[in-house]
Amino acid sequence: MGRTSDARQKILDAAQALIELRGYSALGVAEICKAAGVPKGSFYYFFESKESLALTVLDEHWAAQRTAWTGLLTDTATPPLHRLRRLFEETEAAQLAGQQDCGTVSGCMFGNLSLEMSNQTEAVRTRLQEIFDAQVDMVEAVVAEARDRGEAGVTDVHEAARSVVAQLEGQVLFAKLYNSTGRLGSLWPNCLALLAARAPEGTAVRA
Amino acid sequence: MGRTSDARQKILDAAQALIELRGYSALGVAEICKAAGVPKGSFYYFFESKESLALTVLDEHWAAQRTAWTGLLTDTATPPLHRLRRLFEETEAAQLAGQQDCGTVSGCMFGNLSLEMSNQTEAVRTRLQEIFDAQVDMVEAVVAEARDRGEAGVTDVHEAARSVVAQLEGQVLFAKLYNSTGRLGSLWPNCLALLAARAPEGTAVRA
Repeated sequence: MGRTSDARQKILDAAQALIELRGYSALGVAEICKAAGVPKGSFYYFFESKESLALTVLDEHWAAQRTAWTGLLTDTATPPLHRLRRLFEETEAAQLAGQQDCGTVSGCMFGNLSLEMSNQTEAVRTRLQEIFDAQVDMVEAVVAEARDRGEAGVTDVHEAARSVVAQLEGQVLFAKLYNSTGRLGSLWPNCLALLAARAPEGTAVRA
Repeated sequence: MGRTSDARQKILDAAQALIELRGYSALGVAEICKAAGVPKGSFYYFFESKESLALTVLDEHWAAQRTAWTGLLTDTATPPLHRLRRLFEETEAAQLAGQQDCGTVSGCMFGNLSLEMSNQTEAVRTRLQEIFDAQVDMVEAVVAEARDRGEAGVTDVHEAARSVVAQLEGQVLFAKLYNSTGRLGSLWPNCLALLAARAPEGTAVRA
């Protein structure tokens, strides 16, 4: 039992690392099993197909990210705009840690797979839509709070939240392409611009 | 000679269509040649490798897009912010035409390949960086013009231009994921926000 679930987790960990590095299409089941150090036969014991593995990798990755985002974005001891700022700082720190770990900025797995796979498998497209919908909802709640406190001038908070997440995805794309996390420093001032907000007192906007 | 260059163009056209639809990694040379209706042997007569084909596809696609962008963005008869607005409208129209043609929004080939390939081949990464650098330079010239006319409040026009292009890539990512070009309607108001600009007279901002 211990060994069994261990093998499943090894496959998932290897798949996640390989997908981050090289995307999904280029990967084969044999390669994933080799990297995981498990016999190829055991793959189909745990996963029906490569697609079902991809969905599980997405779910695991989102479960971890959702926990982190929830911790940051629902921390009511922190003013709402500060929470968004911390989200960007944590994103930059995570991308930097990944770069130090494997030499290149790996970007956002959800964005990567949206562009690589969304037109190829409807199951993956639907799952990625749900993940981004959830991200936008979480950001929207914070934007609404900032608006209610008179700290953000936007009226359509859903649209504004979607634009903040789109800006995040676009800048992370550039961070990956240019292999530079410094590009993420503009997330905070751009978020303020998109929300028609000013930098709260005690926070500096990086140039 | 006529037949020869015809075969090369057929390979390029087929490769571009297949890359737009399914990305690069999932494609094989045999499949590209089959779609192009040319014998597989002729592929290596024209292209050293699949990577060199990818670079040529990028170059051809960018040559066409650069011409279109130059036409829109250097049209001095039109005020600078209006030119940016037309760029977004043309982008939306092109994505819509693609969707009507093949059933799904194919997104931006440069963004797609940035996320799929930039960590896999340095030659492609470098080419894509050059393309996005050129896009940002073109937008920056327009932003500088708007700023000099007192129509945009930003001071760092390069950073602002990069953020406008990042927003474009992020929103096109969502248009692809949700297979909906309606998402691109926010490009114009978001651009105004990122440039600290107001909608010029005679233009409505879509909600």
